[in-house]
Amino acid sequence: MTSTLPPADLAPELLKKERSTATFEVQSCIDLVHGSRQHQARRKQLFDLVVADPVLSDREMNSRNHHERYTKALEKAHAFIQLLKKNNITDQSETTIVYQFVGEPLPIDVHRAMFVPTLETQMDDEQRAYWLPKAESFEITGAYAQTELGHGSNVQGIETTAHYDVKTQEFILNSPTLTSRKWWPGGLGKTANHCVLHARLFLNGKDHGIQAFLVPIRDTKTHESLPGVTLGDIGPKIGFQSIDNGFCALNNVRIPRRNMLMRFAKVAPDGSFSKPPMDKLVYFTMVKVRVYIVFVAFRSLAAAATIGTRFSAARVQGTTGKGKPENQVLNYENQQLTLFPLIGLAYACLFSSRVMDALYNKVISQLDGDIEMEHLYLLSQLHASASGLKALLTEEAANGIERIRRACGGHGYSAASNLPYIFQEFIGACTYEGTKDVLVQQHGAFLLKCLRNPVPVSNSTSLDLLGFLQVDANSTCPATRPEQLRDPEILLAAFKVRALKALLRADANKKSLHFVTQASLAHADSIVLSCFYDGILNVQDPKLRGASLQLFQLYGLWRIQANLGEFRFDNYLSAAQGEWVQDEVLALLKVVRPNAITLVDGFGFTDFELNSAIGRYDGDIYRALIDRASKDPLNKTDVVPGYHQYLKPLLSAKL
Amino acid sequence: MTSTLPPADLAPELLKKERSTATFEVQSCIDLVHGSRQHQARRKQLFDLVVADPVLSDREMNSRNHHERYTKALEKAHAFIQLLKKNNITDQSETTIVYQFVGEPLPIDVHRAMFVPTLETQMDDEQRAYWLPKAESFEITGAYAQTELGHGSNVQGIETTAHYDVKTQEFILNSPTLTSRKWWPGGLGKTANHCVLHARLFLNGKDHGIQAFLVPIRDTKTHESLPGVTLGDIGPKIGFQSIDNGFCALNNVRIPRRNMLMRFAKVAPDGSFSKPPMDKLVYFTMVKVRVYIVFVAFRSLAAAATIGTRFSAARVQGTTGKGKPENQVLNYENQQLTLFPLIGLAYACLFSSRVMDALYNKVISQLDGDIEMEHLYLLSQLHASASGLKALLTEEAANGIERIRRACGGHGYSAASNLPYIFQEFIGACTYEGTKDVLVQQHGAFLLKCLRNPVPVSNSTSLDLLGFLQVDANSTCPATRPEQLRDPEILLAAFKVRALKALLRADANKKSLHFVTQASLAHADSIVLSCFYDGILNVQDPKLRGASLQLFQLYGLWRIQANLGEFRFDNYLSAAQGEWVQDEVLALLKVVRPNAITLVDGFGFTDFELNSAIGRYDGDIYRALIDRASKDPLNKTDVVPGYHQYLKPLLSAKL
Repeated sequence: MTSTLPPADLAPELLKKERSTATFEVQSCIDLVHGSRQHQARRKQLFDLVVADPVLSDREMNSRNHHERYTKALEKAHAFIQLLKKNNITDQSETTIVYQFVGEPLPIDVHRAMFVPTLETQMDDEQRAYWLPKAESFEITGAYAQTELGHGSNVQGIETTAHYDVKTQEFILNSPTLTSRKWWPGGLGKTANHCVLHARLFLNGKDHGIQAFLVPIRDTKTHESLPGVTLGDIGPKIGFQSIDNGFCALNNVRIPRRNMLMRFAKVAPDGSFSKPPMDKLVYFTMVKVRVYIVFVAFRSLAAAATIGTRFSAARVQGTTGKGKPENQVLNYENQQLTLFPLIGLAYACLFSSRVMDALYNKVISQLDGDIEMEHLYLLSQLHASASGLKALLTEEAANGIERIRRACGGHGYSAASNLPYIFQEFIGACTYEGTKDVLVQQHGAFLLKCLRNPVPVSNSTSLDLLGFLQVDANSTCPATRPEQLRDPEILLAAFKVRALKALLRADANKKSLHFVTQASLAHADSIVLSCFYDGILNVQDPKLRGASLQLFQLYGLWRIQANLGEFRFDNYLSAAQGEWVQDEVLALLKVVRPNAITLVDGFGFTDFELNSAIGRYDGDIYRALIDRASKDPLNKTDVVPGYHQYLKPLLSAKL
Repeated sequence: MTSTLPPADLAPELLKKERSTATFEVQSCIDLVHGSRQHQARRKQLFDLVVADPVLSDREMNSRNHHERYTKALEKAHAFIQLLKKNNITDQSETTIVYQFVGEPLPIDVHRAMFVPTLETQMDDEQRAYWLPKAESFEITGAYAQTELGHGSNVQGIETTAHYDVKTQEFILNSPTLTSRKWWPGGLGKTANHCVLHARLFLNGKDHGIQAFLVPIRDTKTHESLPGVTLGDIGPKIGFQSIDNGFCALNNVRIPRRNMLMRFAKVAPDGSFSKPPMDKLVYFTMVKVRVYIVFVAFRSLAAAATIGTRFSAARVQGTTGKGKPENQVLNYENQQLTLFPLIGLAYACLFSSRVMDALYNKVISQLDGDIEMEHLYLLSQLHASASGLKALLTEEAANGIERIRRACGGHGYSAASNLPYIFQEFIGACTYEGTKDVLVQQHGAFLLKCLRNPVPVSNSTSLDLLGFLQVDANSTCPATRPEQLRDPEILLAAFKVRALKALLRADANKKSLHFVTQASLAHADSIVLSCFYDGILNVQDPKLRGASLQLFQLYGLWRIQANLGEFRFDNYLSAAQGEWVQDEVLALLKVVRPNAITLVDGFGFTDFELNSAIGRYDGDIYRALIDRASKDPLNKTDVVPGYHQYLKPLLSAKL
């Protein structure tokens, strides 16, 4: 199309050169992120299946509106299930990997991830025997209907009612108010024909709190809404456009008594109620989900960091002097300061999700048979900490992705970079499963309880979640030279003291939510740093361990820099030490620079997964941008149809 | 649809009550924001025209893909021009108001805002006489083609070439490399039939730098691309989906000599070149544009703050105790801490754009006839400061909009809130007209020059842009009680000292871009605070002035809090003063609380402009959400077409 191609393809050359400066082997890092070679090989097989699938390999999400994305996602859901079936993929973790490769939320996702597990955990044996096969074979497909138009995080505010009619032995379901209609559940609008409904149970007019019911909402033959059930899609969103997040209003809908999920709470035919045993067990799932969201934060931020770092290495802008070649954008200090700590944050998310998950599994495995208070106590620590981590890390990862997007200039604004898509899909995680403001309160309140009623805990785990309560709140930072601030012990101590000071301040300002928030964030920050360090200590390859340690140091000092006011609280850091922090951050950028590309290569994303013209492994970004644009639907014709209708009259009107 | 409506419509009631607690009249605030009553009446007339127009009143942008949005925007462009013509609206400021009401970028926008003005300012009289009437009557429609695939902010890197052929007296235009194709210009892809092209001029093989040319790119009869011209749309983006941002590659395209824009640089028929006079004049437009972007930041953030604050007042969540009614979300400290300082930031943006604009006009008006060095010196101060303001305020406003969106929970993620749209459209402003990293360098470098070569300036203006150079860098904050930190003089001084300290540090670390960035941001922060204060001093109504002052105090202390590490640099603020800052911020939240809704009502947005179900003036948010969802295209049929194709086979496959 152009008369000449450039004399040399600069961008790919630049990126290639970056790979020769690393101080460690990229494969060593990929092993760290993706596990054994055997696992990687299997992962590759699953990847190849998705890429070879004519439907699942589609990557044109950004050209579609909500309606089109939903329709395409139905097609993908169909192809996804077919692929699993055809290749006999039944293992949950393998299914999840395939799902990650598909790269777009599917309308049956809630069915898989929440509907079926809820039936499993909350139905009694007889109910399970009847319903689970139907759900697992997709004879029925379900949504999880908890959130209402007027009630999100506050489950106790739910208004949907379930009145028991002892004569017919049925529950009568109603949406009695404007704000009580179910709103948001994925798949509820158009896909699901059943849902798990959370409603307030009334027996003989007496309120028995929120219970779960299995409710048919669409005819399993015609898929039409059942009588008394009003269903629909809530409309477009900033992300998750492929999902039919839906609404549901119920008007005197009757379901059999045995459609209440009865593993714990029970209603007998005569309308008598038996209470569930202690609900500590709810914690189990919530910890798991929140830790998984931290993993999603890792995946999303790591993808964005890979794109941004590769682009910055391949892109040149501005010269250092006349006649000199243009500078790689990655050589600018501001660009490094944007990208490198965020690469660190991505690894911090990975290690945090991994360490927390391992700790969780350890606790769970100890729960065989008798549950001792000590285990539950550790579980509640884990639960509170996971809430705090979810709040902190979804926020930081989301902000990080957007900072990376902006650092890519105009190309970051373009969908061809895929940074907009990654951002739009990810930021839902700041909201679902508890918004920041709700989670930090839960976490902070727990920490305050621990401060006021210290309970001795066995310190059998490598990660000491409450160890910060034992540090000296009046200590000051012992670093006497700038470089000492890199010492992991000095860094970890600084975060612990900050966390304790924040908690003491929250305790002294009992009425202020803000100080509770600060205490939660400071504690979460401290745990993340501990998890990061723990992760590094377990790295086998000494070269990689060295490089990771530098990234850890940069990350830790950057977090101090970003919250310097708090670390200087009570002069824990002196004015001079505060200045050192900044100097050390800048010095460490230079240390990390030669490893930058290999650290993101080490995340092990394929070009297919990144779906980014500017984040390609080979650096051939400009050809990719042109190629992608040429395929845009608007470019199907040189003269757009709208020209004749709207533009021509304008151009010839001689206004 | 539901069986019963709520016993009382709580949300509207809650919002209504908020309006009785304000300490000032809302109309007084609207007058401040929108000017004279006469102007407001005219504004209302223009507003009514847009709302009554069947095409321009469309608000369904969020349901469309890029292709559909572009087509609809062509239709809107047509209707927009017709409306202006029919109602004889020719005044530039009135056109802009109509454009703001349309609320969606139109493909002819660059024609109006950049193409025509460029012909006006860069063509010589003869060229103007020939081309301007054609452009103004839309006989030709143009794009502004500067940015290239490989070259954004660095204009000197432009690779497109224009070789003069003395035999035919033509320029031969080429895109010689992959990275030289024009990329991004609005309207270039499908709409424009001409463009102002920036290319490197060669005369007899000698490089004469970047010049501007008027280039026909499409046939004015058929609208087809002209020979040698490859045109197309660059594809979807995170925002501005209604615009055909385009690409253009040129292959030996010939244009007449007189198609070079010759007001300054000239090429004679024999190929001899005459240099333009000093190009200080370029500053004029750039200051104006950057100050206008600060105004756009105001509009966008103010709209988001209005939506977020109204929603938080109408929404309830959680109780303060058993049996008590649910709490308004606006009563939570964290929600206040998110919203109130951002309401302040919106006012800060408004006053900054206004004060800078007035200062600019004053300087310009002094330039009649002779341009004295002093005026140019002030203009260059203005230019550097406007760059710094644009960098700081687009970033802060964008982050603020996103924070507000997250603070609205699930409803903020939904397009029905319009917060996603406001964010996606606005964040382009962080990139266009100079990314933050480029602007802070320009601004910071200018400040360093001023530090090293102080030039006495007449201090005739109320806004002293370089006054911070005269403060005592070794002073400390004089506040002896927490409340003293609210004193405007103490606040303004703190920002000036911080700015000077940052600049001195940048001077001491010459090789570090980071410290230059810090100096730019600190200085911009200081100017914004001065502009805010200047704006308040000019408020006539004492009640409003009082309320604005409280907002100013909150804003100033919040900025200190957000950058506490810098204000504690060298212990300018002591550890105790640092704590007071936080306490005073929390105390001021309570002071601002009764005025919160009236402060956002005072921005004077109509529901039509906000286009937000949850930001309605009347607080009837839940009915609006239901109403909007019911109109979604996916809800046209109960059973979606995709069911038969993809879902039914899945449900009946008995996997």
